Amino acid sequence: MTETVPVVLCGGNGTRLWPRSRKQKPKPFLPLVGDSTLFAATVLRCEREAGFGHPVIVTGAAHLEHVEDQIPDRANTRIIVEPQGRNTAAAIALAALTLPEDAVMLVCPSDHHIGDCDAFRAAAHEAASLASAGWLVSFGIAPTAPETGFGYLKQGEPIAGTGGRRVEKFVEKPDLARAMEFLSSGQYAWNGGIFAFRVGTFLEELGRYRPDILSTVREAVEKGVADGMRFLPDAEAFARVPSESVDYAVMENTERAAMIPAVMAWSDIGNWQALHEALECDEAGNAVRGNAELRDCSNVMVMSDGPRVSVVGASNLVIVVDGDEVLVCTPDGAQAVGKLTGAANQ
Amino acid sequence: MTETVPVVLCGGNGTRLWPRSRKQKPKPFLPLVGDSTLFAATVLRCEREAGFGHPVIVTGAAHLEHVEDQIPDRANTRIIVEPQGRNTAAAIALAALTLPEDAVMLVCPSDHHIGDCDAFRAAAHEAASLASAGWLVSFGIAPTAPETGFGYLKQGEPIAGTGGRRVEKFVEKPDLARAMEFLSSGQYAWNGGIFAFRVGTFLEELGRYRPDILSTVREAVEKGVADGMRFLPDAEAFARVPSESVDYAVMENTERAAMIPAVMAWSDIGNWQALHEALECDEAGNAVRGNAELRDCSNVMVMSDGPRVSVVGASNLVIVVDGDEVLVCTPDGAQAVGKLTGAANQ
Repeated sequence: MTETVPVVLCGGNGTRLWPRSRKQKPKPFLPLVGDSTLFAATVLRCEREAGFGHPVIVTGAAHLEHVEDQIPDRANTRIIVEPQGRNTAAAIALAALTLPEDAVMLVCPSDHHIGDCDAFRAAAHEAASLASAGWLVSFGIAPTAPETGFGYLKQGEPIAGTGGRRVEKFVEKPDLARAMEFLSSGQYAWNGGIFAFRVGTFLEELGRYRPDILSTVREAVEKGVADGMRFLPDAEAFARVPSESVDYAVMENTERAAMIPAVMAWSDIGNWQALHEALECDEAGNAVRGNAELRDCSNVMVMSDGPRVSVVGASNLVIVVDGDEVLVCTPDGAQAVGKLTGAANQ
Repeated sequence: MTETVPVVLCGGNGTRLWPRSRKQKPKPFLPLVGDSTLFAATVLRCEREAGFGHPVIVTGAAHLEHVEDQIPDRANTRIIVEPQGRNTAAAIALAALTLPEDAVMLVCPSDHHIGDCDAFRAAAHEAASLASAGWLVSFGIAPTAPETGFGYLKQGEPIAGTGGRRVEKFVEKPDLARAMEFLSSGQYAWNGGIFAFRVGTFLEELGRYRPDILSTVREAVEKGVADGMRFLPDAEAFARVPSESVDYAVMENTERAAMIPAVMAWSDIGNWQALHEALECDEAGNAVRGNAELRDCSNVMVMSDGPRVSVVGASNLVIVVDGDEVLVCTPDGAQAVGKLTGAANQ
């Protein structure tokens, strides 16, 4: 078996984590949970010492500077610079077309937090092994709440001799009632957007279901230019690539969909409330980053990049101070942060 | 009857309105409710056009600059500069000893808000008339809630031919149960710290009950120095003045205590919640001063001196941004703002 190549996708913008996450420096490049940024932590989870190959990063020109600043081993990291964002099917195809056919890609979003790194690595190696055998493997994140913001995987038959299962079906974001059914049934997992694919198999299946995506990405790669460790796909060709997620383009269609169950303290840090839940809190549920004083508070998260934040008597609240912006939201309100004028008009 | 001289006391610090109210520029000198500062509004309520005399301001050196900046008619305003704060009995005595015996002083704290200016003026003239007749007159503020932060006046017999009554007794800050009794009995009013005294009567009664205060203040005035419209009492003598409130020193002892009922949308703006209640709010109870965006909020007050404040989903919350400080508190928490490190260590 050849080595597993981490393919790290840096595409998200994280407007629901405004004002800390901003267009100029979005979510993946911020140290939201620990001292590392989400991006750097993603790359470090797949380091060579843990049995992974040198990583490939797929990012846009806007974030290239952050990527190159934060790469742990810049000399050995290839960076594919997308001329524009064309969603995950194209991003993964870009990486695939620059790798050997029998390599296994471990596709990782760069803006998630995984609390249990060992569990992630164990699942990754198991997923890679399934992928080598020709499966297109999703990580099935064990659900801990009836989340309506994620897609779900319904588990199918076990795949003999492995820890994996077939995926019976992919389910788009459900409403709350269905999400609660999914959770109680024990048969569903969250689709966390982490995948293991053998390069050849992925390209075969992409060609089968979305030959238009494959052919345009191939053209962009063939006309592309290498620049040291950077690879620049051809902008004109890439502009013609249909924008589609890998879930829609491949996973929901293929007969070879499998899943590896993963219990690894995963969070997509999808909003401020999710970040609060991922942080270590004191016994009252409060979490503070920066200069703050809390009196008679519970379940309050404060993040400040400078000004002192003094809070008295509050419960269930997120307070973020960043530059010239102050955000205060409740857990329910956290979902709507991206709709604020400040977040929308960056 | 001689004219009624407004005597405006500028002594409070307003730490519960931190971080907007700060040691260097405290509560009276801030435009908290309308466009005027509380101090300027206090002076304007007693303007000559409404039948009052030129005002006398009693303040400390620390706030002299703010006072002189904000006086509407500087050429005609006498300012007594206290070498140090010695509480209200001494402050009023300072003013009294620089006024004619038969003048009536209308003593006004400089950090209260009065929504109904006409009602205030009507009550003031009525109080002045009672004071001319030898009564020491308190304004009895019609209570609207069982406040435990104020002293109360229990009303006594009506004073024939006037709108006033005797004060049966002065009651210090009650606990909640007693405050609720007071409110439901209809016989109690808040002691708002607004008084009308004929100068001679006040000095007579002060001399009767606290001759030590009268004699030391008199010495400080006799050794004092005039400097244009400023009067500077002698610092050495004033340092020996016992520090006592006019309520303890005179009002609780005198046989001549009277009250004028006052329904005038009064607030001492004693904390952020009280300010919120004094402000005009939208139909959801929100009040905004400065750059802010509220989504799905109710009973939220935001004040910002610069940064945009975005709030999502919050109820019953005060948010204040001032310089390098951000305060977030609930209505209950508002009372404890003065205990915050930032407020206490200014």
